[in-house]
Amino acid sequence: MSSGTLNDKVSVVLNDYLKSLDDRSEPVIRLASAVELKGIFKEGGMDMSLKDQEPTGDDALVAACENVLKYSVRTGHPHFYNQLYARGDFASIAGDWLVAAANTNVHTFEVAPVFTVLEEEVKQKVAGMIGPNFAKDYDGLFVPGGSLSNLYGLHLARHRIDPEYNERGGHGGPKLVMFTSDQSHYSYLKGSRLSGIGSRNLIEVATDAQGRMCPQALDQAIQDAIADGGTPFFVGATAGTTVLGAYDPFNEIAAICDKHKLWFHIDACWGGSALLSKKWRHCLDGADKANSIAWNPHKMLGTALQSSIFLVRDTEAEGNLLKKVNGTNAAYLFQPDKANTELDVGDKTIQCGRKPDMFKLWLQWKKWGDAGLEANIDHCFDLAYYFSEKVEASDSFCSVYPVQCTNVCFWYVPPSLKGFNFETATQEQLDQLDTVAPKIKEAMQERGNALIGFQAINGRPNFFRIVFANCSNVTKKDVDDVINTIDEIGRELC
Amino acid sequence: MSSGTLNDKVSVVLNDYLKSLDDRSEPVIRLASAVELKGIFKEGGMDMSLKDQEPTGDDALVAACENVLKYSVRTGHPHFYNQLYARGDFASIAGDWLVAAANTNVHTFEVAPVFTVLEEEVKQKVAGMIGPNFAKDYDGLFVPGGSLSNLYGLHLARHRIDPEYNERGGHGGPKLVMFTSDQSHYSYLKGSRLSGIGSRNLIEVATDAQGRMCPQALDQAIQDAIADGGTPFFVGATAGTTVLGAYDPFNEIAAICDKHKLWFHIDACWGGSALLSKKWRHCLDGADKANSIAWNPHKMLGTALQSSIFLVRDTEAEGNLLKKVNGTNAAYLFQPDKANTELDVGDKTIQCGRKPDMFKLWLQWKKWGDAGLEANIDHCFDLAYYFSEKVEASDSFCSVYPVQCTNVCFWYVPPSLKGFNFETATQEQLDQLDTVAPKIKEAMQERGNALIGFQAINGRPNFFRIVFANCSNVTKKDVDDVINTIDEIGRELC
Repeated sequence: MSSGTLNDKVSVVLNDYLKSLDDRSEPVIRLASAVELKGIFKEGGMDMSLKDQEPTGDDALVAACENVLKYSVRTGHPHFYNQLYARGDFASIAGDWLVAAANTNVHTFEVAPVFTVLEEEVKQKVAGMIGPNFAKDYDGLFVPGGSLSNLYGLHLARHRIDPEYNERGGHGGPKLVMFTSDQSHYSYLKGSRLSGIGSRNLIEVATDAQGRMCPQALDQAIQDAIADGGTPFFVGATAGTTVLGAYDPFNEIAAICDKHKLWFHIDACWGGSALLSKKWRHCLDGADKANSIAWNPHKMLGTALQSSIFLVRDTEAEGNLLKKVNGTNAAYLFQPDKANTELDVGDKTIQCGRKPDMFKLWLQWKKWGDAGLEANIDHCFDLAYYFSEKVEASDSFCSVYPVQCTNVCFWYVPPSLKGFNFETATQEQLDQLDTVAPKIKEAMQERGNALIGFQAINGRPNFFRIVFANCSNVTKKDVDDVINTIDEIGRELC
Repeated sequence: MSSGTLNDKVSVVLNDYLKSLDDRSEPVIRLASAVELKGIFKEGGMDMSLKDQEPTGDDALVAACENVLKYSVRTGHPHFYNQLYARGDFASIAGDWLVAAANTNVHTFEVAPVFTVLEEEVKQKVAGMIGPNFAKDYDGLFVPGGSLSNLYGLHLARHRIDPEYNERGGHGGPKLVMFTSDQSHYSYLKGSRLSGIGSRNLIEVATDAQGRMCPQALDQAIQDAIADGGTPFFVGATAGTTVLGAYDPFNEIAAICDKHKLWFHIDACWGGSALLSKKWRHCLDGADKANSIAWNPHKMLGTALQSSIFLVRDTEAEGNLLKKVNGTNAAYLFQPDKANTELDVGDKTIQCGRKPDMFKLWLQWKKWGDAGLEANIDHCFDLAYYFSEKVEASDSFCSVYPVQCTNVCFWYVPPSLKGFNFETATQEQLDQLDTVAPKIKEAMQERGNALIGFQAINGRPNFFRIVFANCSNVTKKDVDDVINTIDEIGRELC
């Protein structure tokens, strides 16, 4: 045990942990149930329960921290491909550590002067990255996650179409209707409920064979909603859908929004990182025409969780829209007779206190520079295409959808289903294939080889979705190893 | 410069920073404008801007971190009394560091097994702390801040009164009406807008001379709303109002909610920490009768920002209410054919990803034990009453409201206003007093002596609100020093 305070000791443990993340001999996860975890902690001298809690010495606390890390999923392991996030960038983790030590809120400049200025700098950088329209007029906020980012967009859009909504509420107002694709993230659905729009008034627009919103179907859905007495106001597009990684056709959607005077929001939480790459930013062509955009650097870019930014094109005509929609001018916090209050951001939020989430991204950006971040994103795309080629080239695998972002959707096809073809498959074959991914996943979890997600959607039996996010530590050899692992387990179990 | 990785080096800087926080010779703040900060960083070798960003070496990054800490407000300084939070508890900061290194989300047990179990343990502990009703049937979540906690309560309440709301939306439904006191936090107002209730349907109930909601006024307001064609459904009470620290009369409010069948929510974000103290938990008598409660350990208890917990009494009849209201059963994430999915929490949220905010509170609780946390809260109250006695005993100060929580509201009365009495004051005297607090505050900021907030509310000219939160490092001598500092600056400037 090292000397020093609890914080000194925990720092040593954490820095050792980060250094160990490239160790491929470590399991991605030591699988244990809730009951088993409670037993492990108890045996380790630290009950998870807080019942009748006595004080605890630092050494026992440090040992508990070590147990927490040991039995937590190693998201920084090269073989963690399970979510739309992976290893936290180490510079951003250092930034997050500083934020914790500084322990403040970015509601007022008064209590967070440096962070307030840095938030402006990061917003300016990201706005410029989106394109000239955003660079010219923007406002925005770091918010706790992409779902809330999308909710911010919805809230602003509603205010624009119906400035009395905030005061009057949904009762007695127009029947507002919003649109998103049938492949979009469920946060649009949650937002429709929470905001009082109602899920019935959230229209899921059909997508093409690759999961991209069909512009014609959108236009038709808008016309149908109007004919039905509704007031369309919001289109929530997606840059990188959750499962397929599809990018909606933003130019076409922008034209339709323009025609019908609807708010155009893009959930770019996952796929927005392509903007950092000269090679891949074409995926977001037309995104600069949006009214608002949500992007999560904590996903593909690997900024430590959470780092999520909401930007709105705040044109002169609509100046200070965030403040107009959310502001309450609380007398106890945003006093006009205080210094620098014109820089206070808090009144633009639906929250009050906010963590200084900009700092970790700022530090990460400083560390790697534009070129370093670009290389990170390019590598994610490279590995996705490499993995996809391997799938195409193998008899044991079958592609479910073409690669569009850095998620690859595929089936493992056991020997008994050799030559499987989704279009011509019998129900019996589909049922059999449906059991394969869960079985292989469970074995990988138990052995700690790798973590990869699966799901059954769009009428497809369970298929794997491997995700490449912040994977500069992942090599083509790693990808080969994962393919081989799945094949081996598949042959053994299926 | 120490050796090792960037993270090693930043850890050293942060641990040194924490150790320096008791140094009273350090200024609470080095006041600088945004323009000045940009100059300081540029001179220090690190432009705040990210324009055309090149990579940066670790030593320059560490130097930038040092500058960030140097020009940030020292919220851990004994003389930071400005907000409803102060020093971050060091054990909780260590916990937050671990969370950053582990870089995961508590949406599924699969990717956060340890944190998921610990969240259950912390919820159980807090539910038991509130009382037997909550201990018996509860559910809950850590959420990013108290404003969103209150929004969760509103969302559940609306579902109970109008189960079709989520689908139908506000349009075509009943005119729902919610109630809170005229001293409550503005998050109720923001929530009424965002949720589609409408601020017009948020009734601000009158308070007594100490800022507590008047039960008779509430009952009358409910009857008036019904007579006006409204459907009352939600009462948002407060345990520890933002400025005065008032605790609403929960037993009386519970009886009224019971009579009218309304949802009873308590915003205990600030004052809920009194539950930890045998001496002060009486402030929350009747709170156990609420349907839902929001509590922020990051406020008085000093858990590192953010740590905010929402709890709901999830009775058998309403089982799994959070899931019913927020659940979407996203096929890609909450697969029924995965192991341990019954423990997944993510589908209960309005978000998707959530930081494991429970861990820092868990580690803090383990460190200090029940008695240690109780002593922390008792010390906050002790200092508030000590400060108040000093105010009462001095000719240079005048109390604005009696102490109820650990905030003390007071005027500095300059010699020219000696004997000031609010009830009998002339308009000229009020106008003169209104300029005093801003002037003294500005001087304290410039000199870095202390940070204390002020505001003009309830028809009172600007008065100071000093707050005692997580102040085990603050002594009576510190309190005396603050009093003397204000007096000295006041005599000098007013």
